[in-house]
Amino acid sequence: MYDRLKGFRDFYPEEMAARRAVADTLEETARRYGFREIGTPALEAVDLYTDKSGEEIVEELYAFEDKGGRHVAMTPELTPTVARMVVAKGQELQKPIKWMSTRPFWRYEQVQQGRFREFYQTNVDVFGSAEPTADAEILAYAADALTALGLSGDDFEFRVSHRDILGGLLRAFDADVRVREAVRAVDKSEKIEPAQYYDLLHEAGLSYDQAERFDELLATDDLDDLTAFAGTDDVAAAVGNLRNVLDAAADFGVREYCSVSLETARGLDYYTGTVFECFDTQGEVSRAVFGGGRYDDLIESYGGQPTPAVGVAPGHATLSLLLQRAGVWPDEALATDYYVLSVGDTRETAARVARDLRERGHVVESDLADRSFGAQMSYADGVNAETVVIVGERDLENGEVTVKEMESGDQTTAPVDAFPGDHDRPTYDDFA
Amino acid sequence: MYDRLKGFRDFYPEEMAARRAVADTLEETARRYGFREIGTPALEAVDLYTDKSGEEIVEELYAFEDKGGRHVAMTPELTPTVARMVVAKGQELQKPIKWMSTRPFWRYEQVQQGRFREFYQTNVDVFGSAEPTADAEILAYAADALTALGLSGDDFEFRVSHRDILGGLLRAFDADVRVREAVRAVDKSEKIEPAQYYDLLHEAGLSYDQAERFDELLATDDLDDLTAFAGTDDVAAAVGNLRNVLDAAADFGVREYCSVSLETARGLDYYTGTVFECFDTQGEVSRAVFGGGRYDDLIESYGGQPTPAVGVAPGHATLSLLLQRAGVWPDEALATDYYVLSVGDTRETAARVARDLRERGHVVESDLADRSFGAQMSYADGVNAETVVIVGERDLENGEVTVKEMESGDQTTAPVDAFPGDHDRPTYDDFA
Repeated sequence: MYDRLKGFRDFYPEEMAARRAVADTLEETARRYGFREIGTPALEAVDLYTDKSGEEIVEELYAFEDKGGRHVAMTPELTPTVARMVVAKGQELQKPIKWMSTRPFWRYEQVQQGRFREFYQTNVDVFGSAEPTADAEILAYAADALTALGLSGDDFEFRVSHRDILGGLLRAFDADVRVREAVRAVDKSEKIEPAQYYDLLHEAGLSYDQAERFDELLATDDLDDLTAFAGTDDVAAAVGNLRNVLDAAADFGVREYCSVSLETARGLDYYTGTVFECFDTQGEVSRAVFGGGRYDDLIESYGGQPTPAVGVAPGHATLSLLLQRAGVWPDEALATDYYVLSVGDTRETAARVARDLRERGHVVESDLADRSFGAQMSYADGVNAETVVIVGERDLENGEVTVKEMESGDQTTAPVDAFPGDHDRPTYDDFA
Repeated sequence: MYDRLKGFRDFYPEEMAARRAVADTLEETARRYGFREIGTPALEAVDLYTDKSGEEIVEELYAFEDKGGRHVAMTPELTPTVARMVVAKGQELQKPIKWMSTRPFWRYEQVQQGRFREFYQTNVDVFGSAEPTADAEILAYAADALTALGLSGDDFEFRVSHRDILGGLLRAFDADVRVREAVRAVDKSEKIEPAQYYDLLHEAGLSYDQAERFDELLATDDLDDLTAFAGTDDVAAAVGNLRNVLDAAADFGVREYCSVSLETARGLDYYTGTVFECFDTQGEVSRAVFGGGRYDDLIESYGGQPTPAVGVAPGHATLSLLLQRAGVWPDEALATDYYVLSVGDTRETAARVARDLRERGHVVESDLADRSFGAQMSYADGVNAETVVIVGERDLENGEVTVKEMESGDQTTAPVDAFPGDHDRPTYDDFA
């Protein structure tokens, strides 16, 4: 017997049905916003990652040399690939570009709850608009997708922050601060002890007093405090931008899901303006469920024209933890509209009935194994058939089939020539 | 600028829309037959392939050693993975098992028309039935999927063959024939010269006279000739089985798409009974579009209980060539139901209108870049918006919005409070 690889998963039909329902909702919501599906490769040249992130990144990648001597990696995230695609078409693409896709990614890392080596994300991005409306549309998309999945504002919140506020505040201190390093410390702050957090800020260039002051500033309820503290145009502009994003989110009907939380930073270096993370308000999912934000410099860094960008990428693994916690994970069950049961020499009629029902869009199974009435009934029950249509020799002699409702066990006969006939979804009730 | 890897493709939205429409039809047709979607890993231990096919197979694989020292391969096909999954659950799974999925696979091979290193397939399989009805359901699924894509019996044919007939005939010759090798020669016969074909059969153990006789037998119109020639129970049983499959295909309404063609053999060694290939009747697609067949011994060879199986795997690349040849490849174009155009301080109302239209299931875009009327109109035209809803300050003062039909250019006003109101899909005609 062969095993699957550690960190990789097989999805059997019942679980897959639930996962498919969730992915469909994430995609259908994006489609309604006019995000257009793209298709992207599973392999890229490893340079696409190492040029930006350094050689260390290779340790987290499924990277190898192909038969042609190319250094390649299984894609660990979508952003570098879409950056490459935007750059490749350049001015041909009408702006804003609104793209989305669902697919697996791969990282060689420690396997833990909600984290696998093969993981699925739905990526949703806008390229070519620096306006707060674009940030707000990403928030609106994410909120709509979650409510469409059955979650409410009691279940989740978006903690919204702004990289330029963090950077501007850090630069306003009388100290030589390495901003990226300090921002990474902020990103870690929820997961570590305060003393460790202050140590990290200290290592990034702040004194301990400054680190404490910085920490206090991030906790403020009043963004005006920040502008007043910094006294710089940078921070004033960043605060203004964040307010505009929240105003646009209000117009889009999703302000209620957003709270300002400057302690939220997002781990990736490439974010620039607005960043946000989705959290479980009940705290049972202890990590961020997913996140997103603005990355205005990335396309240019890949060789393209300056192209502001903002996006979000719900990961299906953590999202499923939240949906399960909230009791809205879809049923892990097969659904079958009809089982057409054939006994005796009736296959031709049974096949005609099955075909007619399928043409009406229904899920229809019939006997493939030449089995007895009882075995077929048991199978129909196993696939949760709602209605069984029994095509038997004796009934057929009378020009009839039997229609059985599986939940109640009620059954009645129907004229074979009128089944399904004019009925879009014929059931026991139509003939009883 | 970074390049994508050779043999890998980026799909931009227009092309992706067409590909998605095709994949959706392949999957939706399978769903109606009660095939259940599964999810499978992109990586497997390389043993899963080399144990059956020998170490040579590694040359065609994207195979490498992962950070944990595991010898792994990017999956080149689905069958070994589903075999592993069937074996892993064993008796837990209700039979017949009917599974399907769409995903990419990877092979390091020469890139040519319709053949890439990353390629997409929809795999559809039945496990646990040896009955001809199961073979016929696979043929019926494939035919229904193709006709649902807009093809007709004038466009494609299924050339149906039977491995046990081929094997039985070969064994009936007074010669020591290596059957697998001879069957591989049959698979190649269409692509090589007759002399080369006879050479291959000769190498497999037939004399040249026998090779010629064998070739004649395969071309017969009358299956009884084969039974008579061989005079063995094996061939009689195999001919009977093929007839039963075709009779079941007739009951399922798809006999017209099938022709018996014993010259069809399928390349893979694991096939056992019925095999078939789909061909372009016009011959413009020169290779088989896709194929399928019965592989009754495979699950057992992976360590499971004896589990007969039959399946088909339409490859999207060759299928797209056939659809294009037949003129039924879906439009490569964006589709947008509404663009909600906002000018002046009207974003809140525009956002409300967009939200209401999205709730009705429509694809709706609105301004994300704070652009002029003209720039928004140009964008709306670029995404093929059917209707533009203009939310302007002056109109709003009168409690109105403007509804513009983009194809005709006709426009009229509508009360903002009644838009969309009771209308499921409000258009110019509803208000003119």
